[in-house]
Amino acid sequence: MGSDSDLPVMEEAAKVLQRFGVPFELKICSAHRSLHATLEYVRKAEPRGIRVIIAGAGGAAHLAGVIAGQTALPVIGVPLASSPLKGLDALLSVAQMPGGVPVATMAIGEPGARNAGVLATQILALSDEGLRRQVVSFKKALAAGVEEKDRTLQKRRA
Amino acid sequence: MGSDSDLPVMEEAAKVLQRFGVPFELKICSAHRSLHATLEYVRKAEPRGIRVIIAGAGGAAHLAGVIAGQTALPVIGVPLASSPLKGLDALLSVAQMPGGVPVATMAIGEPGARNAGVLATQILALSDEGLRRQVVSFKKALAAGVEEKDRTLQKRRA
Amino acid sequence: MGSDSDLPVMEEAAKVLQRFGVPFELKICSAHRSLHATLEYVRKAEPRGIRVIIAGAGGAAHLAGVIAGQTALPVIGVPLASSPLKGLDALLSVAQMPGGVPVATMAIGEPGARNAGVLATQILALSDEGLRRQVVSFKKALAAGVEEKDRTLQKRRA
Amino acid sequence: MGSDSDLPVMEEAAKVLQRFGVPFELKICSAHRSLHATLEYVRKAEPRGIRVIIAGAGGAAHLAGVIAGQTALPVIGVPLASSPLKGLDALLSVAQMPGGVPVATMAIGEPGARNAGVLATQILALSDEGLRRQVVSFKKALAAGVEEKDRTLQKRRA
Amino acid sequence: MGSDSDLPVMEEAAKVLQRFGVPFELKICSAHRSLHATLEYVRKAEPRGIRVIIAGAGGAAHLAGVIAGQTALPVIGVPLASSPLKGLDALLSVAQMPGGVPVATMAIGEPGARNAGVLATQILALSDEGLRRQVVSFKKALAAGVEEKDRTLQKRRA
Amino acid sequence: MGSDSDLPVMEEAAKVLQRFGVPFELKICSAHRSLHATLEYVRKAEPRGIRVIIAGAGGAAHLAGVIAGQTALPVIGVPLASSPLKGLDALLSVAQMPGGVPVATMAIGEPGARNAGVLATQILALSDEGLRRQVVSFKKALAAGVEEKDRTLQKRRA
Amino acid sequence: MGSDSDLPVMEEAAKVLQRFGVPFELKICSAHRSLHATLEYVRKAEPRGIRVIIAGAGGAAHLAGVIAGQTALPVIGVPLASSPLKGLDALLSVAQMPGGVPVATMAIGEPGARNAGVLATQILALSDEGLRRQVVSFKKALAAGVEEKDRTLQKRRA
Amino acid sequence: MGSDSDLPVMEEAAKVLQRFGVPFELKICSAHRSLHATLEYVRKAEPRGIRVIIAGAGGAAHLAGVIAGQTALPVIGVPLASSPLKGLDALLSVAQMPGGVPVATMAIGEPGARNAGVLATQILALSDEGLRRQVVSFKKALAAGVEEKDRTLQKRRA
Repeated sequence: MGSDSDLPVMEEAAKVLQRFGVPFELKICSAHRSLHATLEYVRKAEPRGIRVIIAGAGGAAHLAGVIAGQTALPVIGVPLASSPLKGLDALLSVAQMPGGVPVATMAIGEPGARNAGVLATQILALSDEGLRRQVVSFKKALAAGVEEKDRTLQKRRA
Repeated sequence: MGSDSDLPVMEEAAKVLQRFGVPFELKICSAHRSLHATLEYVRKAEPRGIRVIIAGAGGAAHLAGVIAGQTALPVIGVPLASSPLKGLDALLSVAQMPGGVPVATMAIGEPGARNAGVLATQILALSDEGLRRQVVSFKKALAAGVEEKDRTLQKRRA
Repeated sequence: MGSDSDLPVMEEAAKVLQRFGVPFELKICSAHRSLHATLEYVRKAEPRGIRVIIAGAGGAAHLAGVIAGQTALPVIGVPLASSPLKGLDALLSVAQMPGGVPVATMAIGEPGARNAGVLATQILALSDEGLRRQVVSFKKALAAGVEEKDRTLQKRRA
Repeated sequence: MGSDSDLPVMEEAAKVLQRFGVPFELKICSAHRSLHATLEYVRKAEPRGIRVIIAGAGGAAHLAGVIAGQTALPVIGVPLASSPLKGLDALLSVAQMPGGVPVATMAIGEPGARNAGVLATQILALSDEGLRRQVVSFKKALAAGVEEKDRTLQKRRA
Repeated sequence: MGSDSDLPVMEEAAKVLQRFGVPFELKICSAHRSLHATLEYVRKAEPRGIRVIIAGAGGAAHLAGVIAGQTALPVIGVPLASSPLKGLDALLSVAQMPGGVPVATMAIGEPGARNAGVLATQILALSDEGLRRQVVSFKKALAAGVEEKDRTLQKRRA
Repeated sequence: MGSDSDLPVMEEAAKVLQRFGVPFELKICSAHRSLHATLEYVRKAEPRGIRVIIAGAGGAAHLAGVIAGQTALPVIGVPLASSPLKGLDALLSVAQMPGGVPVATMAIGEPGARNAGVLATQILALSDEGLRRQVVSFKKALAAGVEEKDRTLQKRRA
Repeated sequence: MGSDSDLPVMEEAAKVLQRFGVPFELKICSAHRSLHATLEYVRKAEPRGIRVIIAGAGGAAHLAGVIAGQTALPVIGVPLASSPLKGLDALLSVAQMPGGVPVATMAIGEPGARNAGVLATQILALSDEGLRRQVVSFKKALAAGVEEKDRTLQKRRA
Repeated sequence: MGSDSDLPVMEEAAKVLQRFGVPFELKICSAHRSLHATLEYVRKAEPRGIRVIIAGAGGAAHLAGVIAGQTALPVIGVPLASSPLKGLDALLSVAQMPGGVPVATMAIGEPGARNAGVLATQILALSDEGLRRQVVSFKKALAAGVEEKDRTLQKRRA
């Protein structure tokens, strides 16, 4: 992520990965302020065994796009609502990438950070049967959670 | 994709996959008009060996989101500019997914369709060394393409 | 509605229906997390005697659209302001439906939830003379309410 | 509708009603230029047996809202893309109604006009078994249409 | 104005008129809920000697437009930020009027309400030399106010 | 207006004034490129007998606002759709004026230019009985025009 | 800046200039309320040795544009989020200038004010070797700051 | 600029610089596709005597921001209208930069490209008396151009 002020939101991604037992690291680096550290990190990522990169940033959110240009790994971008425009700027800056350089763009803010963790897991699950089963359970748990909330509602109203 | 009118744009994804030698199929199905055929397709996708699903739609673009709720596979969404709002509606309908159900959202229209093909390949390349090398070459070719255009410009101006 | 966090807003619809003596049920179900329960509910709705369905959701609000594709009943959609974009995303996701699958879209948030209740009643009133008279009274009460507020203002200023 | 320039779009609603055998009339009247004729029309509508009113307008689209305030009948609004803002202005003017006065808002432009016809039919079908069967067939035909397009695509690619 | 909840903002217009000694009245009436009272008021306005009408409303703000269609008097519209879209909906609903029916649209919210009072006074000042002199003084006072604030700033920093 | 490229749109205002027999002049001047000529024009306007100023501009449309700050006369602003943002930029630049300096903002483009002519006439009509009668006739003609179009439609369909 | 209410944000620019030892002055003046004082200030600015002008304003933010039309000096504009539209209006009013009259537009609000100070310094540094070295150090300090935050994060997580 | 398709717009900047006799070079390079060539170019720019960098890009326009992070030189960004969102995406991607890394953002498209040339010249003119005189003449010519257009209009109408 681009700044430690983004940490409370981006930790939602970390929580999801933790839940799935997917090893991960958190890093603060910036496409504007510390580009060389960012590029160095990206260059070494694949040899070090990293398989998916999640980048969260607000405003003119360039971090995900710049990383996506420098790696063959899938890059997931989370637009953050840290400017007065509430993330519309970040969403357009992350999503509207030119042909050849995709960023898998998530929703603005917390749901987007959580989904970045889920999507990363889904990607890794393609070659990890254990993870795949966990994702299937997770999807079922989502349904069960909604149904449980519905039962609570029905009871309350009965 | 949701309609045959989306075909000219979505074929950009197909061209990219063809170039990488990634087998794929094109299908027209709709979250609104033919949901059961869509769900049937999604249900069988993983057992049939499909590993990534790309969904393109315009306006209130629900196709990618509905599919994402029904599969553990990564789902890539391409918002199309087929309404008078030029894809802003589709971008928000595809990207702003709730926590737990990610859609990897691409840019609006043609660049997004091409990038859906590239991202799908990058995901598959995580467990396919041949594809990985192709993606690395593709990224280099992008750089070379830009540099070639620059050389042409410099010559023309010399 | 898609989540219990939508309940405080969607209860505005319930209050209106209660006021008109229209029987209704509240249900939490999701187009993404619990689609099969949703479809099951929709499939049985008409045989069970349900005549109008109101669906409220925020962000990439697909619930109303997905339901509308699966029933011949009129479907009313309420876009909720639960994301940082304050319901613009939900409004476009609910309203911009493709030809053939209408969703009767209401205003964002509370006024929209109340209006969903009113519109449902207006629809039912087409074949229920008692309800029709109530709706006519309700419209008159709206006018009387505004005129009462005006009289209060005039007195205060006199 | 507010002007004869809206006719080509609003005729899409007429075509749908014609297809379902639902009797209808087309009328040009304006919330701004000919309000009294509009109100007169609305006042007589219910006694004359009219059961649903569809109003299409662009820009500061007030027609549907003004009618909705004057009748107990369900009112469907179609925002038209006739201004440089491409219908975003009309969509907000039609949808963002205050509590108590619902307008069933459709998509911008042609799909919205078609859907106004479909929704009106769905509403009438609640008390007309023949219509109800037609709507069910129509929904099936939508699905069949998509599946036919898919078959054509598969053949072309085979 | 359309509701007593608009009063705190619309009183800004009243304060300006009071300051200029322009007689005025405040009225709550609605284009949707109490149209006939509104039309009655508008119809009598000119004979009663009213010369400018100011209308404030939020959301699908139709009040100013409907009044403008029914009077030869200048109508000033104030869009209010009472919906989640913060007045963008009201601004477009007030400003995007069709040819022939102008509404003099002000800024969203408080500055707009104040400016409605100023513009009304400027219009009346065209045929009232005393008012004209007051408006000229007011404009000078605006400049003096800014210059005074600047002097305070310079002192504080000296 | 700010440029001769704005002339085709702004001539709509001129046509309306001509129709009402209101004397007017057209002038090209700019808040950015020729501010001093603009200010000189504005300074002399009132002594020369000018009573209303209409200013049309696109993009960062400052012309109306700058004039409004320099005169006690009513200023009408017409936002033009000359940039890629289709007049949304101009509308916000013209309408969102600070307290104390109103600009009577019209719709974007042609309808706005026409309405500027109508509003100017309505303002002048406050102290000109002949004009007032013309405006009343004009409003009636608007209604008659809509009703005529409706009759044509009914005949065509009969 | 246009008002003393803009001071808390615009002081961010002052702090940056102070840090670089760049002499500056703060001034409150308005394109609408005190244009002549503004123009007088701008006219004398260059002879007095001023080399860059920073203008901050919200809403219909005309200050930067009007100044830019009156000077050969570079003008930097800071859009402020002081209206309900949260600075989108100010951003478009500052950025969308016509050809020939550039305003160097910054981000909305605080980051924009800070950047105005940085950009002014970068411009002055072109002919001031000492400043140039400071800017280079500042950019390095930005990178070091991000890297320090990252180290803190890594420690906390270790 | 990021692509040769941007050339027709960005040549407007070149024409302006040519007119002022400011030496310049045109280069195609990309923040995403050829970042290393871009960084290499930026790194050498200052030692080679380059004093201002203009970067034009559309969509998720990251070029200007990435360059701005890597140089102490002033960077001017031109958002291009090359995506279906007509440059709103590019404007937000260029303007909404975080504190510490300013990009001098111009208008979308051609006027922005021309203004980039003008602003660059204004910056260079701070330390070049000849250029300064040219900029002063240019500003006068702008005024004269508007006044000439006005005279043509007056003649045509006389």
